[in-house]
Amino acid sequence: MNTHTLERLESEVRTYSRSFPVVFNRAKGAKLYTESGTEYIDFLAGAGTLNYGHNNPRLKKALVDYIMDDGITHGLDFFTKAKREFLETFESIILQPRGLEYKVQFPGPTGTNAVEAALRLARKATGRTNIITFTNGFHGVTMGALATTGNSKFREAAGLPTQGSSFLPYDGYMGEDVDTLDYMEKVLNDASSGIDFPAAVIVETVQGEGGITASSIKWLQRLEKICRAHEILLIVDDIQAGCGRTGKFFSFEHAGIKPDIVTCSKSLSGYGLPFAMVLMRPELDQWKPGQYNGTFRGHNLAFVTAAAAIREYWQDDALANEITRKGMLVEQRFKKLSHLLAEVGIKTSTRGRGLMRGLAFPNGEMADSITSECFENGLVIETSGPEGEVVKCLCPLTITEEELTQGLDIVSRAVEKLIAQHSTEHKMAANA
Amino acid sequence: MNTHTLERLESEVRTYSRSFPVVFNRAKGAKLYTESGTEYIDFLAGAGTLNYGHNNPRLKKALVDYIMDDGITHGLDFFTKAKREFLETFESIILQPRGLEYKVQFPGPTGTNAVEAALRLARKATGRTNIITFTNGFHGVTMGALATTGNSKFREAAGLPTQGSSFLPYDGYMGEDVDTLDYMEKVLNDASSGIDFPAAVIVETVQGEGGITASSIKWLQRLEKICRAHEILLIVDDIQAGCGRTGKFFSFEHAGIKPDIVTCSKSLSGYGLPFAMVLMRPELDQWKPGQYNGTFRGHNLAFVTAAAAIREYWQDDALANEITRKGMLVEQRFKKLSHLLAEVGIKTSTRGRGLMRGLAFPNGEMADSITSECFENGLVIETSGPEGEVVKCLCPLTITEEELTQGLDIVSRAVEKLIAQHSTEHKMAANA
Amino acid sequence: MNTHTLERLESEVRTYSRSFPVVFNRAKGAKLYTESGTEYIDFLAGAGTLNYGHNNPRLKKALVDYIMDDGITHGLDFFTKAKREFLETFESIILQPRGLEYKVQFPGPTGTNAVEAALRLARKATGRTNIITFTNGFHGVTMGALATTGNSKFREAAGLPTQGSSFLPYDGYMGEDVDTLDYMEKVLNDASSGIDFPAAVIVETVQGEGGITASSIKWLQRLEKICRAHEILLIVDDIQAGCGRTGKFFSFEHAGIKPDIVTCSKSLSGYGLPFAMVLMRPELDQWKPGQYNGTFRGHNLAFVTAAAAIREYWQDDALANEITRKGMLVEQRFKKLSHLLAEVGIKTSTRGRGLMRGLAFPNGEMADSITSECFENGLVIETSGPEGEVVKCLCPLTITEEELTQGLDIVSRAVEKLIAQHSTEHKMAANA
Amino acid sequence: MNTHTLERLESEVRTYSRSFPVVFNRAKGAKLYTESGTEYIDFLAGAGTLNYGHNNPRLKKALVDYIMDDGITHGLDFFTKAKREFLETFESIILQPRGLEYKVQFPGPTGTNAVEAALRLARKATGRTNIITFTNGFHGVTMGALATTGNSKFREAAGLPTQGSSFLPYDGYMGEDVDTLDYMEKVLNDASSGIDFPAAVIVETVQGEGGITASSIKWLQRLEKICRAHEILLIVDDIQAGCGRTGKFFSFEHAGIKPDIVTCSKSLSGYGLPFAMVLMRPELDQWKPGQYNGTFRGHNLAFVTAAAAIREYWQDDALANEITRKGMLVEQRFKKLSHLLAEVGIKTSTRGRGLMRGLAFPNGEMADSITSECFENGLVIETSGPEGEVVKCLCPLTITEEELTQGLDIVSRAVEKLIAQHSTEHKMAANA
Repeated sequence: MNTHTLERLESEVRTYSRSFPVVFNRAKGAKLYTESGTEYIDFLAGAGTLNYGHNNPRLKKALVDYIMDDGITHGLDFFTKAKREFLETFESIILQPRGLEYKVQFPGPTGTNAVEAALRLARKATGRTNIITFTNGFHGVTMGALATTGNSKFREAAGLPTQGSSFLPYDGYMGEDVDTLDYMEKVLNDASSGIDFPAAVIVETVQGEGGITASSIKWLQRLEKICRAHEILLIVDDIQAGCGRTGKFFSFEHAGIKPDIVTCSKSLSGYGLPFAMVLMRPELDQWKPGQYNGTFRGHNLAFVTAAAAIREYWQDDALANEITRKGMLVEQRFKKLSHLLAEVGIKTSTRGRGLMRGLAFPNGEMADSITSECFENGLVIETSGPEGEVVKCLCPLTITEEELTQGLDIVSRAVEKLIAQHSTEHKMAANA
Repeated sequence: MNTHTLERLESEVRTYSRSFPVVFNRAKGAKLYTESGTEYIDFLAGAGTLNYGHNNPRLKKALVDYIMDDGITHGLDFFTKAKREFLETFESIILQPRGLEYKVQFPGPTGTNAVEAALRLARKATGRTNIITFTNGFHGVTMGALATTGNSKFREAAGLPTQGSSFLPYDGYMGEDVDTLDYMEKVLNDASSGIDFPAAVIVETVQGEGGITASSIKWLQRLEKICRAHEILLIVDDIQAGCGRTGKFFSFEHAGIKPDIVTCSKSLSGYGLPFAMVLMRPELDQWKPGQYNGTFRGHNLAFVTAAAAIREYWQDDALANEITRKGMLVEQRFKKLSHLLAEVGIKTSTRGRGLMRGLAFPNGEMADSITSECFENGLVIETSGPEGEVVKCLCPLTITEEELTQGLDIVSRAVEKLIAQHSTEHKMAANA
Repeated sequence: MNTHTLERLESEVRTYSRSFPVVFNRAKGAKLYTESGTEYIDFLAGAGTLNYGHNNPRLKKALVDYIMDDGITHGLDFFTKAKREFLETFESIILQPRGLEYKVQFPGPTGTNAVEAALRLARKATGRTNIITFTNGFHGVTMGALATTGNSKFREAAGLPTQGSSFLPYDGYMGEDVDTLDYMEKVLNDASSGIDFPAAVIVETVQGEGGITASSIKWLQRLEKICRAHEILLIVDDIQAGCGRTGKFFSFEHAGIKPDIVTCSKSLSGYGLPFAMVLMRPELDQWKPGQYNGTFRGHNLAFVTAAAAIREYWQDDALANEITRKGMLVEQRFKKLSHLLAEVGIKTSTRGRGLMRGLAFPNGEMADSITSECFENGLVIETSGPEGEVVKCLCPLTITEEELTQGLDIVSRAVEKLIAQHSTEHKMAANA
Repeated sequence: MNTHTLERLESEVRTYSRSFPVVFNRAKGAKLYTESGTEYIDFLAGAGTLNYGHNNPRLKKALVDYIMDDGITHGLDFFTKAKREFLETFESIILQPRGLEYKVQFPGPTGTNAVEAALRLARKATGRTNIITFTNGFHGVTMGALATTGNSKFREAAGLPTQGSSFLPYDGYMGEDVDTLDYMEKVLNDASSGIDFPAAVIVETVQGEGGITASSIKWLQRLEKICRAHEILLIVDDIQAGCGRTGKFFSFEHAGIKPDIVTCSKSLSGYGLPFAMVLMRPELDQWKPGQYNGTFRGHNLAFVTAAAAIREYWQDDALANEITRKGMLVEQRFKKLSHLLAEVGIKTSTRGRGLMRGLAFPNGEMADSITSECFENGLVIETSGPEGEVVKCLCPLTITEEELTQGLDIVSRAVEKLIAQHSTEHKMAANA
């Protein structure tokens, strides 16, 4: 595999090609193939972008037919037949059955773009500027979104302090005994708290980059109640946790809450195509024509595959049930590993919801040793969390049970190897 | 044509569907077709995104073959064969013959994302924060990029003041007698000017959204000299003017300058697919791994079509010569219209470079009346400029001469109609 | 009393003249006199600016002698004899006996100016930008200081969001069971907390405007320890709590901590003259000449009275002991009132340290009714706290025991009146 | 003279004590005396703070009488007799005869505090955030005011980028042929200029720190007209140029304009006491009670001396005429020196208005050599301007003609010495 040109010409900013130093060429479902033909099971799935697997054949057909037929590829924000079909499909299959009424904005085709639009909308609608965001949250890296992203790696790289947000502790951040919303309610009721009264709260129901940390249903429900009571808008950033990842189309359905604004991207196109969307309660749609733009807003190829994905997977509960079942399977395997690790004194915990699952190690080095070993054995899997301490499973939702089991077996063997090394080291230390 | 769902569900932010209230469905080359079969010539071309026309058949073949073969669609910043082929093609056909040595970053697939990355890089590399940008400049609307964009429509919608930039007058802004770089040099040499010593200057060689205003070759050369002398980085935002639009692949080639950083997007994929790129002098590549990210960075379908476009159109001078020739043709027609308008007392001017051409009217209403009339007669064409006063021609570079002439004929008839109305009104006023 | 001109010409921003709508003319010790001769006991003392009473005769003599002798009044930051004498006095009587080694900066003569200088110094010395500040903190209202002030009244009036600070919960803010420094330590150790790693922490040991809330000694000691461990600078804003107010010259002496930077103002001149000072560990004195300025920095009349005050009051423990004794007296009286109020179901609490004492009512209306009633009866006293719910005693430290008792008697009678009204209302409600 | 303690204890930020390394002790009128008795003529006058000279005997009497009588020294923003007398005096002697109607705010007692208040007021009153300020402007160094100050020394020391302002070229900045207001008008009329439509313009009619640069009367009048036409507030910062410095009480009287807001400080108290004031058109007084505060707002000793100064000096034209006459005298002497310098090839220019006069040298080194030589010979005089290239005369307005002549003679001899050295160097160079 020739990586010379890539290493020479591509910026040092590249990162996944360091963890997985091979040249991929083809992919299908939950499998990735290098140009020399090596096969990998994919537990990364484009960091949550390939919920329906790589090159899903049903979506592929719709995509290729559309291209072959010279359907509009790029049309700024023209009305197009593909856009109309997406909107109709999304309304009838997703929104209406869930009792949701939203208007839809297509900002630039990236998650960060959707977040920038959502924050602006909240500021316009309320006339306030501050946004409450949470510790370990990730909402993108363009300057507006970055203000709500906790990760110092990105924040430091910005070269400017961000502004317009206040960080408050996410569910569980202050230990099990503290309901972090007590603090939030206190600062909202205190005119001298220094936390400027906010336009909105932006939250992930499960923090993906933050370490697959799921907030409790109760916490989310109380968060919604606080927002309503104070007339603060509730923005759910469903970019990573949405599109079925947690077992329901929207991750917030578990809590029965109705956000004022929702951001979607990643798996929305279903095919890995750049695509993003902002949903907003109709009365919040206070944009003037053209006040927010972007050359690639409303990517028509993505309309086609997104509509196909919804028709294919969300007309009944089949996929949702599958996700829940497979999620439990992953959770059980992770729990088992956690017990094994506990026996040799390595304290871990399992996390997540649906097929967004994590096994949290004491530190990033251990987690890294697992993912490296996995890659050696044919599994692409990565870590997340503040110190990269969480091994995370974000496999395609459509993964076969056989593939899932194979992948989990690889993880198990990596954990066993770690345990063996750990025991040996301890024995040596004890004998020394 | 059913636009009901679209109007009901899509956010009020939509804009082109107001000027062109039809539902497009198919497109080929320089032609757009509505779902009811009406045909339009396209002088908008995705606001400069479709330099090679809609659904260019040569690129389409490469794209469909790749998809059919289950090539990697989405792979974060994995090494892929498609990426390598793009980089090799770009280096050998574009960079090397032009004596340019750059490293390449693939940020999120939008222009604004490339600009955000470029500004951050400049700040990192210099340890300074301020960016000099120019009146009427447009560099995107996410908060970091927005700081360098002049348009108050976007700036007001942000809900927060931007920071980290200073606006200086673009070439010609203070009239013909003032070299605006005199002012720039003065503030740079004055430690009390209030313009914080900048990390970089960001500039469009031809301002697209700003009104198809082309800076002079001399001005660009002096700008580069000033930057060199003060050790300020020069960023050319070639998102709209690049990829051949002005008659050369990079718009700055006309001036023989070598920017430190270049941002590319829009027509880079060649097929209207979301795609963006930052070029930087190798020593400026000071990113640490993963310091800037984005789910859709390095869109593989776009690598495929971008490489195909370069191979197809930039191995020789044929297209470049075509652009120049057609550009002159547009310019001559616009000059002729300008003379006709002058005869009835309407003062206009022609602007631009290559196939980025504008006819500037005294106000936005007149320009609007032209584009509305054109649309009635089968031509999609829009305005730009601070008051929307410039009718702009951004047709595909690959437009046939026949289509170009047809389009220009439609513009001419619209101008003649305006002249007729104007004369009638004057006569009526005189008789009253 | 003629208030017409005052009401007509002075800006609506005026505030104390609304609570105390009389025209004062003379003052001595703890007594204020209106121009019509009415006498008031002063429990406000310039919001902590008149620790040594109004027009303290010993300081007055020094001041008038200096003026009569044509001593330098205004000299920018010239070396003057008065400045030298102040510095020598301050070093020998205050710093050396306490084992403190600081360099001294004289910024503009206001507290906010000292805070602006301190924050800048912390940023310079560390190369970081963020400052941790606490809920309900007050550090001034110029834009740099305002970023660290919690009160929304001032923050909203700024017309711009502030930047460069993060608010964390002050001691006790999350209830008795939560050590708020746990949260602080957590965010400092978490690279994804969103709280940018700070240059400094700025803290009041007793929050004056925040409601006379005293942080515990243990909390302050742990705060210092956390700062040391993370190499974060500790700034104690001793503008209101310093100069003896809490029973020691510096309020932080109670905790035995040594801040890196200290801001002083208010009672520093001893005579109510504008004066401010920043103390810094010598190695933090990284200013270049003239990098921070202000026309009135180093006010020479204030040097004279400040030196006199230190010589007069801080060469032995007499005043300090007095403060502690009187402080206990106030505390006991407030405790007694609190018990009486509890009996009729009004829950209050007592707060403070030294002669910085508060009685916290359930709401601002009750507290206001007390201070209004007091003013009617010859006592100037005000409220503080987020809702103005704390009646605060900031009488001169030099108040006579008789005056103090008189003042407290007035407070007591006002409380008794409140209790009587409250009981009547309850009876009426019960009978209804 | 013992400077040891001063050098050891005072922060490195000190600056004047470096240019004038002596210990001053007494002062009277235009004379400064060191503690060892050396006498200096004072052409610095507290950087414009001592317009009526040091320890002016008439003001001193009022001050000492007030202190001796135990007048209120510090009273926050209480109504006091001293405040009322100041307001009545200011209204009847200053405002009414000039046809000015303003309300008066007493912010903290420093110029920067007045500017912070003025900017906030402009933002409140207009609902806009941007402030237009000018190249080489100086309006203070607290963060809000600093945004409008051009000097990079202060800006860099801030540790944070400032925000909320845009710098435009001051009168003459782009050479004699360019009216810089053309550019201002252009950006105001251009919705895409990037200069956010401003709440206000803040301007010094003569830039003190900026190099004693006087804007032309015509420019000021046009500036007012532009502001009126665009409904932008006009703030004149008269902190240095006001209180008679230019020959009229307010510096803007020369142009016959009426600013919406005026900031005053420096010589306002007349005695060098910290004092500041914001004047505003009554309808702009949109403060809510207490929305802007400061412990030392409304310094009562300053009310006393300020009222005395106005009564003493502004009831007739005597002082104003004196200033004009002495100003011409300085100007003539500076012109003469300029000619002499021109003869040996040193190009200088004279600047200013009234008794705010400058002689601009080609560089800071030459200007420094003059002021150093002057100090050697008994004259305290300093430089200003972006490179410290302007020797400035800001002597007390009440200086005797004899003292003025003595001072100017010292300057002349310093210039002659420079000329002699210069000639020698040239001859040596020629002979070499």
